[in-house]
Formats: sequence, structure tokens, C-alpha cells
Amino acid sequence: MADEKQKILDHLWFREMYTGRNVGLIMRIERMIYSKKNDIQRIDVFDHPDLGRVFVLDGMNMLTEKDEFMYHEMLVHVPMFSHPNPKKVLVIGGGDGGSVREVLKHDCVENVILCEVDKDVIETAKKYLPTGVELDNPKLKIVIANGAEYVKNFENEFDVIIIDSTDPTAGEGGHLFTEEFYANCRKALKKGGVLSAETESPFYDYPWLKMAYERMKKSFKLVKVYMGFMATYPSGCWSYLFASDEIDPLRDFDPDRVKKFNRPLKYYNEEIHVASFALPNFVREIIE
Amino acid sequence: MADEKQKILDHLWFREMYTGRNVGLIMRIERMIYSKKNDIQRIDVFDHPDLGRVFVLDGMNMLTEKDEFMYHEMLVHVPMFSHPNPKKVLVIGGGDGGSVREVLKHDCVENVILCEVDKDVIETAKKYLPTGVELDNPKLKIVIANGAEYVKNFENEFDVIIIDSTDPTAGEGGHLFTEEFYANCRKALKKGGVLSAETESPFYDYPWLKMAYERMKKSFKLVKVYMGFMATYPSGCWSYLFASDEIDPLRDFDPDRVKKFNRPLKYYNEEIHVASFALPNFVREIIE
Repeated sequence: MADEKQKILDHLWFREMYTGRNVGLIMRIERMIYSKKNDIQRIDVFDHPDLGRVFVLDGMNMLTEKDEFMYHEMLVHVPMFSHPNPKKVLVIGGGDGGSVREVLKHDCVENVILCEVDKDVIETAKKYLPTGVELDNPKLKIVIANGAEYVKNFENEFDVIIIDSTDPTAGEGGHLFTEEFYANCRKALKKGGVLSAETESPFYDYPWLKMAYERMKKSFKLVKVYMGFMATYPSGCWSYLFASDEIDPLRDFDPDRVKKFNRPLKYYNEEIHVASFALPNFVREIIE
Repeated sequence: MADEKQKILDHLWFREMYTGRNVGLIMRIERMIYSKKNDIQRIDVFDHPDLGRVFVLDGMNMLTEKDEFMYHEMLVHVPMFSHPNPKKVLVIGGGDGGSVREVLKHDCVENVILCEVDKDVIETAKKYLPTGVELDNPKLKIVIANGAEYVKNFENEFDVIIIDSTDPTAGEGGHLFTEEFYANCRKALKKGGVLSAETESPFYDYPWLKMAYERMKKSFKLVKVYMGFMATYPSGCWSYLFASDEIDPLRDFDPDRVKKFNRPLKYYNEEIHVASFALPNFVREIIE
């Protein structure tokens, strides 16, 4: 039995090649949990001996149980703590449930809509992913739709919009990086509303950050890049955009609200909020 | 010819497995440049199609041409700009020359000693590495010695000591993580002197950061963790220690000195200096 286990541990590997395909990450697969190919994408779930449950879309690592907190906390709490009192929140993408879980840690939130294009992602998350814990929360409404289309239905509706997309080369991710989409998000926000978006690695994929930043600037008065570590994403160096017409995430930030927050966080704190807007020179240059 | 090149590009790969050996990085090798095994370690140098020249010790990636600036600028400029006027600097390890190159960007520096245990690393850097550019600088004295032994020769001598080690599992790197070594560094510093050290990934290797922090606290009144991105190191999330008896890297920091600095930097700036001391909760917990 021991020998058989060893054999399994040695021959199953996940490999993700980064942009350019000359460098990438490999992860040992302890056990394949689930695989499905539907009309939209390929879904894989496996267990890693150290990183726990791993969720993969079209061959790209979306999250590992061990480090997903880095990404989800930064994508969610920076806008949620920049807004003085977020009640209605729209999450676009993010069918794994990680962003929704973080949003629902804020007691002030009254309702959340999760707009995910692929119903199989929601079902996978509910059945197999540790991030799926809040997908049955009564404050949450799940809508299966293309986010870029869905957001057109709203005007002056949300306090916070969170764009938790896959990368823009993916079929569905691409819709969530267009000028029109950002303009529609702006329209769907209430006055005083704020938005955040994941914008990939400034080391391997800086053209995507640059593109998203320039496009978002056409719809919002204030757009700022912020950054965080994300251990199993390409380069571990991850960028996000914050956008608003009225709210400045540094000027309008109240660190005491974070200090008094009654839910455990593994990454985000009041110092990280401010520090994440300090950009290394090579990132400053991308958006100059 | 085209076919032959393609064949080479497809079959040569570098693979580095991280702690636990269940996750790692792979890099395509465009061309092997140099390999040598001596009594101390194995040295490899190769070219990568996107990341440029890559330098490997005992199978561990020490630097790629494309991202080494992240590591060297953070290891060096945080202590150099925390000290008001650094003139004498000791770099321990760092035979690739990257740290020395950053130190010598400071015009106030009068002399630098580079103490590297392996003369082949120095020769490799001079011949093959882009970081080796300043290894013939007249302000620099290169000493081939065990850093932990060498530092015992000094008392009240240096303004800044920079510990640019390999990881503590490596034969030679281990000497540079002991309590006795830190105590001797303290003795070798002048009053008002400061020290920095690389302390690995807090995601994959937090016991090493914890160990170094606790040991360093026994010799220095102030020890602080700071962090930076490092794209091709494990997790991309890298930790450093700052130590001093008199200097606080936040209280005593003058951002104007950085703004007036006349040499180009790709990572470090006055905002990054301050922001790098903001620690995510999971790192705060490591040193609590």
C-alpha cells in the first residue's frame, strides 16, 4: 500500500506555463477530485500534499486552499473598507465563492449578487471547494450570466462592484476588460460607489494592467493600482485596480474600522491597506 | 537550422522544487553557459528566452537578469537609506555582485568589503553575470572567506552590514543564520550602524524567518521584518530583516534623500521603503 501511494505521488503533476510559455509552476497532484469540460471551459480540482485543494480553469490555477486568502482579501477588503458603509455589492466572476465569503464578513452588507458565467463553477465550488462556504448564504443571489451583459441592467444600484475575472486571454475573461464594460460598471454604481478589479501580474503581464488602467480611467475620475502577494499566481506579484468618482482609498480610509473588525483575516490589515498603494518603480512606469 | 534550434528549446529545462518538494518552478533553458562543481557547491549559468541570464547554486535559482533588481534593491537600499551617511559597508555572501552594485550607487560610500566564501562564484560573476559589473570597482575589496569567521575580525568598523546569503539548509548558508554570527555582526557595526539580511519566503519557509528574527532579537535592540516581491523566488513573497541598536528605519528615514538620489532604481522608492514594513497578518503571526 505504501508503495502504491508513493507511485501515485510521483506520476501525477499539474503544470501551468506563464505568458511566453518558457517559465511555469508545477504542483504534485495527490489526488484528482473532479474534472469536467463544458461549452465554456475545462474545470479541474485536485488535492496537493501541502497546498490543499486546488481549483483550475482551462489549465490555469485559480486558487489553492493554502494561499487563496491573499488574493481574495486584497480584492475585497480594500474596496469594502474604502467605502464608508457598503450595503449592496455585485461580484462579477468569482464563482469559486472566495470573494463572496470575504464580502459577507462585513455585517453592514445587506445583499450580494454573484454574477458567474459558468454554472458548473458554482456547482464545483459548492461541492468541492473550501471557498464555497457562503454560496448558500441567504443574503446572496447567484445569477448565471455573462457579467458584461448583466451589468447593463443596472443604474445607480451598487455600493461596491468587485471584478473577480480570469485573465483577458480566456474567452470569458476578455469581456471583463473592455472600455464599455467599465463604463457600464460606473453606471451601475451608486454615487459614492467604488470598484475593484484583479489585473494580473505586472511582471509577466504588464500590458494587461496598462490596458485595464487606461480603459478604466476613461470612466472613473480616480483609478489607482494597488498590489499584493499571491504565492501560487505567476510571479507572486499581483496587481488590482481601485476606481471611484468620489472615494479616495487613502484619503477616505478609516483605519479604526479595520482595527474594530470582528472577523479573522489572514492578510489584510489597516497598514496593508495603505501600503498596498505604494508601487515599485517598475509598476509606476507601466501606468505613467 | 530552425528545426535544430526548436529542438534545443524543447528539451533543456531547469527545475527547482521548493521546501516539501511538491511544488516548484520550471524554466526553459535556451543555452547552457557554464557549469562547475567545486568543493563547496555546484554552479550553473544559463540563458532563458525571457528572463535573460540565470544563476543557480546547488540547483537553487539565485537570480535571473530580469528580476534580480527586486531582491537586490530591497536588501540594500532599505538599510542604506535608513543610515544617515553610510561610508563603510560589509556585504556577506552575495558573490554575484548584485548587492555590491546597489551599495556603490551611493556616492557617500568610501569602501565596501565583499566577503564571499566561494571564489568560483566571484569568477563566474565577473565572466558571466550582469550583476558582476562593479566587482572591479576600486572602492571594493573582495575577501574569500567564511563570512561567519571573517566578521569576528572587526569591532566598531562598519556603518552597514548586508547579509546576502543562500538559504540556511545550504552548507555555507547555515553559518549565516546563527545567534553567534548575529552577535558578531552587532560587534562589527559602529554605533548607529544598521544591518539587513534576507530571510526567505514567509509562505513556504516561515520557520527560517521566525528563527532568524528570534536569534537576531538577542543581539539588537530593534529588529523589524520588511517585505518585497521577488518574481522567480519561491512564492514571489520575500522577507528581510532590518536590525540596529540606534536607528529606526521608519522614524529616522528621510524620504527627500531618496527623491534626490541620482541613480536609476527599478523597484525601491520612498513610498516602498515605508510600505515594505507593513506586514500581512500571516507574517505578523510568524514573529509574534
